[in-house]
Amino acid sequence: MFQEYDVIVVGAGHAGCEAAAAAANMGSKVLLATMNMNTIAQMSCNPAMGGVAKGQIVREIDALGGYSGIITDKSMIQFRMLNRSKGPAMWSPRAQSDRMRFAEEWRLALEATPNVDFWQEMITGLIVEGQRVTGVKTSLGLEIKAKAVILTNGTFLNGLIHIGEKQFGGGRSGERAAKGITEVLIDLGFEAGRMKTGTPPRVDGRSLDYSKMEEQFGDEEPGKFSYMKTKPLQKQRSCWITYTNTDVHDVLQTGFDQSPMFNGRIKGLGPRYCPSIEDKINRFAERDRHQIFVEPEGWDTVEVYVNGFSTSLPEDVQYKAMQLIPGFEKAKMFRPGYAIEYDFFPPTQLNLTLETKLIQNLYFAGQINGTTGYEEAACQGLMAGINAHLKINEKEPLVLKRSEAYIGVLIDDLINKGTNEPYRMFTSRAEFRLLLRQDNADLRLTPIAHEIGLATEERYQLTIEKMHGTKTLINDLKQKKYKPADINPKLAAIDSAPVKDKSSLYQLLKRPDLKLSSFEQLDDTFASYREKIAPEVQHQAEIQVKYETYIQREQENSEKLANLDNKKINPEFDYQKITALSAEAREKLLKVKPTTLGQASRISGVTPADVSILMVYLAK
Amino acid sequence: MFQEYDVIVVGAGHAGCEAAAAAANMGSKVLLATMNMNTIAQMSCNPAMGGVAKGQIVREIDALGGYSGIITDKSMIQFRMLNRSKGPAMWSPRAQSDRMRFAEEWRLALEATPNVDFWQEMITGLIVEGQRVTGVKTSLGLEIKAKAVILTNGTFLNGLIHIGEKQFGGGRSGERAAKGITEVLIDLGFEAGRMKTGTPPRVDGRSLDYSKMEEQFGDEEPGKFSYMKTKPLQKQRSCWITYTNTDVHDVLQTGFDQSPMFNGRIKGLGPRYCPSIEDKINRFAERDRHQIFVEPEGWDTVEVYVNGFSTSLPEDVQYKAMQLIPGFEKAKMFRPGYAIEYDFFPPTQLNLTLETKLIQNLYFAGQINGTTGYEEAACQGLMAGINAHLKINEKEPLVLKRSEAYIGVLIDDLINKGTNEPYRMFTSRAEFRLLLRQDNADLRLTPIAHEIGLATEERYQLTIEKMHGTKTLINDLKQKKYKPADINPKLAAIDSAPVKDKSSLYQLLKRPDLKLSSFEQLDDTFASYREKIAPEVQHQAEIQVKYETYIQREQENSEKLANLDNKKINPEFDYQKITALSAEAREKLLKVKPTTLGQASRISGVTPADVSILMVYLAK
Repeated sequence: MFQEYDVIVVGAGHAGCEAAAAAANMGSKVLLATMNMNTIAQMSCNPAMGGVAKGQIVREIDALGGYSGIITDKSMIQFRMLNRSKGPAMWSPRAQSDRMRFAEEWRLALEATPNVDFWQEMITGLIVEGQRVTGVKTSLGLEIKAKAVILTNGTFLNGLIHIGEKQFGGGRSGERAAKGITEVLIDLGFEAGRMKTGTPPRVDGRSLDYSKMEEQFGDEEPGKFSYMKTKPLQKQRSCWITYTNTDVHDVLQTGFDQSPMFNGRIKGLGPRYCPSIEDKINRFAERDRHQIFVEPEGWDTVEVYVNGFSTSLPEDVQYKAMQLIPGFEKAKMFRPGYAIEYDFFPPTQLNLTLETKLIQNLYFAGQINGTTGYEEAACQGLMAGINAHLKINEKEPLVLKRSEAYIGVLIDDLINKGTNEPYRMFTSRAEFRLLLRQDNADLRLTPIAHEIGLATEERYQLTIEKMHGTKTLINDLKQKKYKPADINPKLAAIDSAPVKDKSSLYQLLKRPDLKLSSFEQLDDTFASYREKIAPEVQHQAEIQVKYETYIQREQENSEKLANLDNKKINPEFDYQKITALSAEAREKLLKVKPTTLGQASRISGVTPADVSILMVYLAK
Repeated sequence: MFQEYDVIVVGAGHAGCEAAAAAANMGSKVLLATMNMNTIAQMSCNPAMGGVAKGQIVREIDALGGYSGIITDKSMIQFRMLNRSKGPAMWSPRAQSDRMRFAEEWRLALEATPNVDFWQEMITGLIVEGQRVTGVKTSLGLEIKAKAVILTNGTFLNGLIHIGEKQFGGGRSGERAAKGITEVLIDLGFEAGRMKTGTPPRVDGRSLDYSKMEEQFGDEEPGKFSYMKTKPLQKQRSCWITYTNTDVHDVLQTGFDQSPMFNGRIKGLGPRYCPSIEDKINRFAERDRHQIFVEPEGWDTVEVYVNGFSTSLPEDVQYKAMQLIPGFEKAKMFRPGYAIEYDFFPPTQLNLTLETKLIQNLYFAGQINGTTGYEEAACQGLMAGINAHLKINEKEPLVLKRSEAYIGVLIDDLINKGTNEPYRMFTSRAEFRLLLRQDNADLRLTPIAHEIGLATEERYQLTIEKMHGTKTLINDLKQKKYKPADINPKLAAIDSAPVKDKSSLYQLLKRPDLKLSSFEQLDDTFASYREKIAPEVQHQAEIQVKYETYIQREQENSEKLANLDNKKINPEFDYQKITALSAEAREKLLKVKPTTLGQASRISGVTPADVSILMVYLAK
C-alpha cells in the first residue's frame, strides 16, 4: 500500500524534521514516520533555541537551507544576542520560543514540502537485505520500502522515566517509549549504550511572585536566526532570574538517598553541562546558590519552564525545595521534573556522513548518537538527510570540515572521539572558532548548499549579494585615504589618536574605538555612502577588517596543532599539576593516560584549549 | 504537597474541560488532572462541533455559561445552519473547527480561569472514606485530596485499539491507555461494561482530486454558537462531498473475515448512528453508495478527515478501497482508521446530578457513561461540574427537565433508561423539541445559570435584553392594527391574502408567507421601527408568534404522554406490523416485550415519536 520511498525518516523531532525537509527539498520522496502526528517537533525540554555555540549551529543550519532558523524566527517570543560584549566569535543568538507555535510551524512547514509524506505509527523494525537497509517494519506489521532510512529516535528507545524511586516506561513525559529498534540493531551487530537526561518541573506562572526576581528583557533591537527575509520581533516577553539558596539545597539533600542519580538506579551517564540541581549541589558543594531562569513557554500560556532546576528527586522534595526559592513561595507545579534513560548507539559506529558502517544506507541522527540539545540534533538530521539523498543518487557525500562549521566539529568529534556522556556543543570544542561565527555562516555554507541543490536560488542570491557587498565595501575603505593634516583634526574631535602617514578608512577601522559609523565624522560624504549599504554587509566588513590579524593568528595556531601525533607524552604524567587545564580534561587525561598529544586531543572532553595548554607545558 | 481541592476533574477532554471550568467559575478550587498537558481538549474524531440536536446542546452549554460555544466560535473554519428549510425546532448549527486551534483555545481558556490548577499524571485510583470519595491517587503514588471527584476518562479506560486482526492498548491513536480506575470502581461495587467506537483514516489533502467532488460551502452569512459577543467568521474553508461505490464496497468486503467487528473480537457495542463503513455495507446491502464528507482539519494543515469512512478493517484493505472513491485515486493516508474498545459504567448507577449512587461526591461525565459525541460529553461535564460545586456547598442540585433542555433529555435518558450502545442525541429523543430550539437556549437556561452563579452578569444582561426586547416587540405587533380598507391594497401588492376584520401585525405574522421584513411594505413607519431592534430579537419574536399554536399543541401532547403507565400492552403484541415505527424501536420492543406503554417509552431506542405511534395504534 506504500510506494517505495527514497528516504524514510523515523521520528519527527528536531533531527527527523530537518532530515525529512532536507532530503525532500533536494528531490527525494520522503516518508516521515512518527508515533503521533499531534506531537511533531516538540520542544521536550526548555522552550528555547540557540545560545552559546548552539546559536551558531542554528545559523549554520539556516545557511545550509534547513528550517530550524526560520521556524524559530516565526515562533520566538524573545531574542537575545549573548556575549555581545565579547569578540564576534562568541556572539551567540538565542531565542525563547512559543512551544505550541514552534511545533505547529514545523508541522505546517513540513506539510508545505511537496515531497514529504507522513505516516503515524511506531516503527519497530528494519528490512535489511545483505548489508543494506531497504525499508522499515511497523507495529501493525506493515513493511515500507525505501532506498535509505534515517533513525532519529531521540529519547524514545526503551525510554525509562525516573522520579525519586519510581520508574516507568516513556519516551517523554506523558508519552510512550518506542520498542523494537534497539533489539533489531543489536541483532545486526551494533553496540548500544545507555544515556540519561533530565528536565525540570513545569510550573503555573500565575502562582509566581515576579517582584522577587530580576527581569531579563529581550534585546532592544532583536535579531533573528534566518539569513532569509523573516520578520524580526515587534514585541517580546521577558524571562526572569532568581536563585536557589542553602535552604533550598538542604531540602533537596533530604531526597538524595532516594535519588536515582545517586543510588545507582540510573545507569546511563547524564549531560555534564546541563546537570540536575542535585548534581550541582553535589559537585559544587561550596556554592551557596545557583541561578534559575524562569522562562515563559509561549505568548499566552501561563506554563513556565524552571531552567536550572532539572531534577529527578522525589516529587514532594522537588515541591518543598522549590517553594523556598524567592518568587516561588506559592508555586504550583504542572508536573514534576524527571530523569529519562534511553538507548543510544556510540557514534564511532558511523561514517562522517552519519551512515552506519555496518549497514549501508542506514543513517543515525540526534540523541540516538549520544548528543544532547535541539540544535545538535537538528544539524545531524540535516546532514543525514543531505547525505542519504546524495548517496542514493550516487553523488559525492557532503562532509563539512572542522574549519567550515560547528556542524563539522560536532560530527568529527562524534565519529572520531565517540562520547560516553551526552555531547553538547561549546565554542571551546572548535579550533577555528573565529572562523565559525554566527554572522558568516551564510558566507561559509550557503554556496556549498546551493551547489548540492538544497539552498534555494533566492537564498543563494542573498548570500552572493552580501559577499560582494562586503568585498566592495572593504575595497572602498582601502581606497578612501586621507592625509594626516586633513584627517587628524577630525580624529581629535572624536577622541581618536592622530595618524602619522596617509591612512585609509580600512586602516582606521582596525582601531578598537572606531566603527564604520564613526567615519561620518571624518568624511562628509560617508553618511550618504553608508546609508546605501545593508547593515549586515557593514557588520560583516567591520568584523573582517577589525579581526583580520586575529583570524590570521588562529590559522597559524591551527597549523601548529596539525601534527600532534609526533609529540610524545609520558603516560604517568601528573595532569593535576596543570591547574590551567579544565577539570574535565584532567579527569579524562588521568584516566586514559595518552601516549601522544594527538591521542590526548582526541579524548572526548579534552578541548583544543586544553591541548594548547598541554603543548606549552610539554615544550618546557 | 497539594492543597485540598474542592473538585478534582480526571481527564481533560470535552467533559473534563467543561467540568473544570464550571466548578471553578462557580468558586470551587479545581484541579484538572490529565495524562498529557499537550493534548488537552483534543478532537479525537472529526474536527466539527454541533450538528442536528448536537448544535442545540452546544447552544445550551453556552447559555449555561460553559465554554464549548465560545471555543468553537474562536476556532471554527466553517459554519452552517443545518435544516434551515425546516421548522425552527430542526435548525441546527454546525461548525468545522481547526483542530489545533480548538485545543489551544481550550487550554488558554482554562489557564485564564483563576481557580483551575493543572496536574499532568495518570490518575490510577480513588481515595474513599466510608461511602464518600475524598481524593485521587496518581501513578507516582501521590494522594491528592478533594471534596468531590469527577471522572471523565473518555475512551482511555483499558482502551484497546483494533485494526484488522491486530490489537494494541491505547486511549487514542498514538496515546497510552489508562489503567487502574476501572478495577478500583469494580472493587467499590460498580458494574462495568465495554463499548466500542471508531474513526476513519486521516489523509493528505495534497493527494486528493477535489475536481471530482462536490464543494460544500459554509453559510453565506455564517452564524455562531455563543450568545456572547464572539466574532462571526470573515472567511471560511469549504468541505467536499464524494461517494463510495460498489467497487469500494467489494474491496472492503474482502477484509470482512479479518474484521474485528464481524469475527467477534470486539465485544463492546458500537454507535448505531455513527457506524463504520463496513457496518453500513453490511446493514444496508441494497445501497450502492454511501456519502463521504471530506473535511479539512484546520485553516492551514493539509490533514483531511474522511467523514463517513470510519473503519477497523485491515489497513491495506482500507487503503485499496479508499483509492476507488472518486477524488481519492491517489490518496495518501496519514494513519489508518481504527476501532477502539473501552470500559464504560452503565449510567443507571448515577443520580440525575451525575453523582454516583454508590459513592458520594463522585461524579461521572462523558463517554464513561456510555455516550458518544463531543457535545454529549461536554454537557455532562458541565452538569457534573455544576452539581459537584453545589453539593459541596450544600446547595440544591441543578437538574434540568426534559422540557427545559436537550441536556435534561440526555441525562434523564441515561439515568432512567441506561444504554448498552453509545448514546447519541437526536431531536427525536426530545418530546418537547419545539421548545428546545437553538435560538432560545439563552432564554431557557441563562436565568437558571445566573441564579446558581455560573452565567456572568454580562451574559445575563444580554439574555434579559433579548427577553424584554422580544416581549416588547410582540406587544407592539399586537398594538399595530389596521382596518381592512387600509391594509388590503398593500397586502395585495405583496401577494398576500386580504383580511376581513381589523388585524394586527401579530396576526399577520402568523401567515407563512409574511415575515417582519414584509411589514415594511404595509406600514411606512415600520422600517425605522424595525431597524432599532436587534436581529436575534426579531428572529425570536417571529418564531414565537409564527409557531405559537404548534408549541401549544406540543404541550398538549406532552400532557397526554404524562400518564403512560396506565396503558397496558399485550406482551405478545406483533410490533412488526406497525411499519411506522422505527426499525430500532421494533427490534427493541420485540426483545423487551413491555407490559405498559410507560415501560415501552423507557426502552433505549424507543423515541417519543414511536410512543405516539403506539398510542394511536393502541387506541384503535
